[in-house]
Amino acid sequence: MDAQLGVHWTHRLRFTTRVFDPGNVTLRDVLPDAAEDPARVLAVIDSGLAQRWPKLEEQIRRYADAHRSRLSLAGQPLIVPGGEDAKNDRSVFDSIIAAIDGAGLCRRSYVLAIGGGAVLDVAGFAAASAHRGVRIIRLPTTTLAQDDAGVGVKNGINALGKKNFLGAFAVPWAVINDVEFLTTLTDRDWRSGLSEAVKVAVVKDRKFFDAIARAAPRLIARDLPTMGEIVHRSAELHLQHIALGGDPFELREARPLDFGHWSAHKLEQMTGFRLRHGEAVAIGIALDVTYSALQGWLSEPERDQILAVLRGLGFEPLDVSLCKADDLLAGLEEFREHLGGRLTITMLRGIGQAFEVYSVDHAIVIEAVSRLAGEAGQNAPTVNGSAAVTPTHIRVSSRLSERDPDNQLQQG
Amino acid sequence: MDAQLGVHWTHRLRFTTRVFDPGNVTLRDVLPDAAEDPARVLAVIDSGLAQRWPKLEEQIRRYADAHRSRLSLAGQPLIVPGGEDAKNDRSVFDSIIAAIDGAGLCRRSYVLAIGGGAVLDVAGFAAASAHRGVRIIRLPTTTLAQDDAGVGVKNGINALGKKNFLGAFAVPWAVINDVEFLTTLTDRDWRSGLSEAVKVAVVKDRKFFDAIARAAPRLIARDLPTMGEIVHRSAELHLQHIALGGDPFELREARPLDFGHWSAHKLEQMTGFRLRHGEAVAIGIALDVTYSALQGWLSEPERDQILAVLRGLGFEPLDVSLCKADDLLAGLEEFREHLGGRLTITMLRGIGQAFEVYSVDHAIVIEAVSRLAGEAGQNAPTVNGSAAVTPTHIRVSSRLSERDPDNQLQQG
Repeated sequence: MDAQLGVHWTHRLRFTTRVFDPGNVTLRDVLPDAAEDPARVLAVIDSGLAQRWPKLEEQIRRYADAHRSRLSLAGQPLIVPGGEDAKNDRSVFDSIIAAIDGAGLCRRSYVLAIGGGAVLDVAGFAAASAHRGVRIIRLPTTTLAQDDAGVGVKNGINALGKKNFLGAFAVPWAVINDVEFLTTLTDRDWRSGLSEAVKVAVVKDRKFFDAIARAAPRLIARDLPTMGEIVHRSAELHLQHIALGGDPFELREARPLDFGHWSAHKLEQMTGFRLRHGEAVAIGIALDVTYSALQGWLSEPERDQILAVLRGLGFEPLDVSLCKADDLLAGLEEFREHLGGRLTITMLRGIGQAFEVYSVDHAIVIEAVSRLAGEAGQNAPTVNGSAAVTPTHIRVSSRLSERDPDNQLQQG
Repeated sequence: MDAQLGVHWTHRLRFTTRVFDPGNVTLRDVLPDAAEDPARVLAVIDSGLAQRWPKLEEQIRRYADAHRSRLSLAGQPLIVPGGEDAKNDRSVFDSIIAAIDGAGLCRRSYVLAIGGGAVLDVAGFAAASAHRGVRIIRLPTTTLAQDDAGVGVKNGINALGKKNFLGAFAVPWAVINDVEFLTTLTDRDWRSGLSEAVKVAVVKDRKFFDAIARAAPRLIARDLPTMGEIVHRSAELHLQHIALGGDPFELREARPLDFGHWSAHKLEQMTGFRLRHGEAVAIGIALDVTYSALQGWLSEPERDQILAVLRGLGFEPLDVSLCKADDLLAGLEEFREHLGGRLTITMLRGIGQAFEVYSVDHAIVIEAVSRLAGEAGQNAPTVNGSAAVTPTHIRVSSRLSERDPDNQLQQG
């Protein structure tokens, strides 16, 4: 017999400020109403965030106390390392599993994950796996996590040297974006997640792209209301795509929200994660819009507009690590393998107009890299290895350290 | 915004004999048709099964060769330990993950898991986690796996001393039941999975219960066609429940297919897994039908009928480990915690007529145990510990060893 199995979830996306102010009912109201026992909630907090918000634990306790008919804290909040370390070191996953067990969470209890994308990813995978799925509420605290990564249904950790090699698709019970958390980010983390807003705009929404272009100076000047608006629209577009795209768990091939990501994943890996994901995505976007232009799909003025917006947001759209083109091109196959099936890459024929291609011309990728390098006044790419390979890598890391002394401290 | 997310899968359940005979098209035909590239398949085989079917690997290779336009083997088959060890030792999970990586499987490739329920559980969890979900085809090779555990959507491993503490709901691409594999089972493994057929019958289908009652002598005599019929109907009823019950991933509370399981899980744990799952379920059924009768929900003649069928299938419906009633009752809370939400236990008001209760009267559980013990000529249960506790446990293991010299060798 063939049986059709369907499963349906509600995903609640909310926007607020000062989520743990006792008068703020956003978190309370995503929980089941008072007819049931209070929701049992285990908080898992990004260590970088806990450092920058030293009163956070106390605020959470007070919040729970003010809303005790709806919410009860299960065990002490668990502080876990932020940044990619959280995903590279399986002991972080194990510690969350142990905390879920220790707090006696059941499948109708909640993990409340608060932090950057990496912490949300590992906490989400742990919650998805314990008892085959404890509910998760995410409070993303970086631009990247609020405008993209924290909104979706993917969770995972790195394994065997591969990003997100282990993970789960799991629909979060709720995602609450509190823009206030962004105020303590370094400039680098404040900015770097904006490449995902650019990505979803160029793929789906010309009007939003124009709004980002206009907002760029205010974004760079750290204007919080502007940031809130851009994050709001980006998060909504991401969730709409997941909900309306008809394939939330990516059982088929198309993944237009991965525009610019085939090279971005590889660049992160090639630079030992010294490039932030958002920075790598900015480069990946620059590369794929250049490729689209070289193929004649995208007009040159539109290509230039996109690059100008990326630069206006503070991105350097070419990192020299791109010059190691043979390594970079290996990323195409890794991307295919991770997605499964035939290679499917999103390209642009206009801003807001995406389409898919099923092969990539390596020579044109190299030409695109050359052009970006030329525009940035850098060397042409090397292919099949050369003496320049190692110095290239060293240059990448030293450049990053120069432009951001906070490089090693990841808020997550 | 609230977004509704829906995901749909097709689950293919097939019945056959000699699945790897080159002329058998069952496996070939569940794979995508020849318009696509051949399906890449990594076989994961239960070591107990590999021992009993020494030509299996060679047969799989020949089968793949005969159907090479549809199926290509990715890497060497991986042999993994069978039985509960496979779920207790995380290195088995890790070895499958490494093999998936080594074989370069993608999300549209297949793990072909061949073995008992434990191997299917760990291979299923590994496949569900790698790349957030590689496809899995299950070939269950024990009665228990064919008539129940291998059919469904649950996968998992044991962790922190708790059965299935980590896992995933994942819909298998296909499940193929080859009754021929049952011929090499020990009598104990041949028989013990039949308790799950009794379970689904008493909960859902009086006619099927009567069929099992009539078939019992032939089942015990190892009549293969009869076994094939019973397994077929049981597997179908399980899949129908999952597909038509409206809640395949158990997001709500009701789980009528867990009848008799609250105590069964605990009994397995209390006996250090010396009781087979199916044996523990037989005891769990005996306990809950006795409880249902003591409560006046189930008639005494129907209770006696059910116990007679269990005995007719070779089960001893009371194991002395039951006598440690305080430990056993702790299983109620563990069961609730694993399912989540309020305690929900299935009970019977007739054969084929299940209903749910939300609390369990401990005194009546103890009375039910006493009655079963009395009927078996054993001691009454101890409560709150006593000198009898340790000898009880020793008696359990020695009894099991006596009645089945094959006790330590798990085919899985």
